[in-house]
Amino acid sequence: MEQLITSRDNKYVKLAKSLCTKQGRDKEGMFIIEGYRNVRDASCKGAKIEFLLVSDKCSYDLTALKKHKMYNLAPKIFDYVSDTVTPQGIMAICRMEEINFSDIELENDSLIVVCENLQDPGNAGTIIRSADAAGAKAVIMAKGCVDVYNPKVTRSIMSSLFSVKVIQGKNIDSVFGFLKSNKIKSVAGALTDKSVPLFDADMKGSCAVFIGNEGNGLTAETVKRCDTTVTIPMLGGAESLNASTAAAVMMYEFVRQNETYKKG
Amino acid sequence: MEQLITSRDNKYVKLAKSLCTKQGRDKEGMFIIEGYRNVRDASCKGAKIEFLLVSDKCSYDLTALKKHKMYNLAPKIFDYVSDTVTPQGIMAICRMEEINFSDIELENDSLIVVCENLQDPGNAGTIIRSADAAGAKAVIMAKGCVDVYNPKVTRSIMSSLFSVKVIQGKNIDSVFGFLKSNKIKSVAGALTDKSVPLFDADMKGSCAVFIGNEGNGLTAETVKRCDTTVTIPMLGGAESLNASTAAAVMMYEFVRQNETYKKG
Repeated sequence: MEQLITSRDNKYVKLAKSLCTKQGRDKEGMFIIEGYRNVRDASCKGAKIEFLLVSDKCSYDLTALKKHKMYNLAPKIFDYVSDTVTPQGIMAICRMEEINFSDIELENDSLIVVCENLQDPGNAGTIIRSADAAGAKAVIMAKGCVDVYNPKVTRSIMSSLFSVKVIQGKNIDSVFGFLKSNKIKSVAGALTDKSVPLFDADMKGSCAVFIGNEGNGLTAETVKRCDTTVTIPMLGGAESLNASTAAAVMMYEFVRQNETYKKG
Repeated sequence: MEQLITSRDNKYVKLAKSLCTKQGRDKEGMFIIEGYRNVRDASCKGAKIEFLLVSDKCSYDLTALKKHKMYNLAPKIFDYVSDTVTPQGIMAICRMEEINFSDIELENDSLIVVCENLQDPGNAGTIIRSADAAGAKAVIMAKGCVDVYNPKVTRSIMSSLFSVKVIQGKNIDSVFGFLKSNKIKSVAGALTDKSVPLFDADMKGSCAVFIGNEGNGLTAETVKRCDTTVTIPMLGGAESLNASTAAAVMMYEFVRQNETYKKG
């Protein structure tokens, strides 16, 4: 550990602070992971960690993280950079990896998750975590979605950002192009004339599950272009499920139908 | 609308402010619903609304809410009472309804959701909303759970608090007593030696789905007392799902197996 950093003008502090905006993240090609468990898991899963910033008040045992460059910050400088209300005193500055459609390793029963205009950082994080749990090969956050490197997203993703492939910045046309050329069935979650109850839909074989905006759902054009439209039955007074909840219910119906949980 | 209230000492302001704590809510037997859509839905669904507090800055059309007593607050007084960062300028002060086991209307394929030590207000709200959507007959928030009348919970519940029966304050012994006397199968979501994958479990007939604490899951004693223990398959790098996501996946597996979505 080097000497205590007490100034906002320190170059590491300035770099980290710049990563709090999308513009800064895109310029540097880096983002922040915050909190002890998140940093430890990111390190285990091979995240490209450039360096760690640690508050002088941090009480965690950092032995497992010794292999990374570590800079020691005065608590008030750490709080200045931190995005959280009660910081745990540790954050990692990580390099982004650019992931493309060609990086997706497809099998005959691959699950892909596609989000369109998803805005809530918590939902995005939860969807990526659920997609990882359900064994999805990729999560595609099409143009118009919240930035997955937003600190509010990385916080709720846990370490799934490093175990499931997350692709962003693609327009919806290129997403459909990728799906069609790989014969992946597209399944929209939406209520239309042609919708069938989720449990009556055929999700056998590779599927892309489409999730839309929290308030407005998927765009009409996207629903029209999907092969199948499903609704999750609403049996009480609720009009809808939370977007990330709906996504998980759809993903696990894929898992059930394909019995991917019985593999290996 | 009466004259503008500009003082924190006004009796309606003082009452509403007191409802921001659990102690205050329990003393008055009232709680707050905030935001235009939530208030409108609560009103439609027959919530016992005592009165509305409306900010002088509120821009919503309040015609549909004219049947309720309405007090007009200076914006800074409204913000003082409000729990939100960007208030919509309308809240309803509602009377709690005490709901007991005997109020649950059971059928042969009833879904009950039981939460133990659930702490996160957002999760509690989302679980109640999902339970409503899945047609659950009741959500039992056993002792040790977050208060469902916490404004952070009522915000994420949407109006499901008025369409699904939510029971709280019961200890876990009495919950098992209720389930046993009604021959309702108890299904724990947990990873133990005797766990089976969710999709291989028999959830036909009435079931109570048990959800535990966000970090620690269900207590060992509760898992032991449940008839069946299921795990949601984790097929990627994620160790677990978010508690409210797991709850919804379990609830909808019940819906699928019992085909309750094909009824009426």
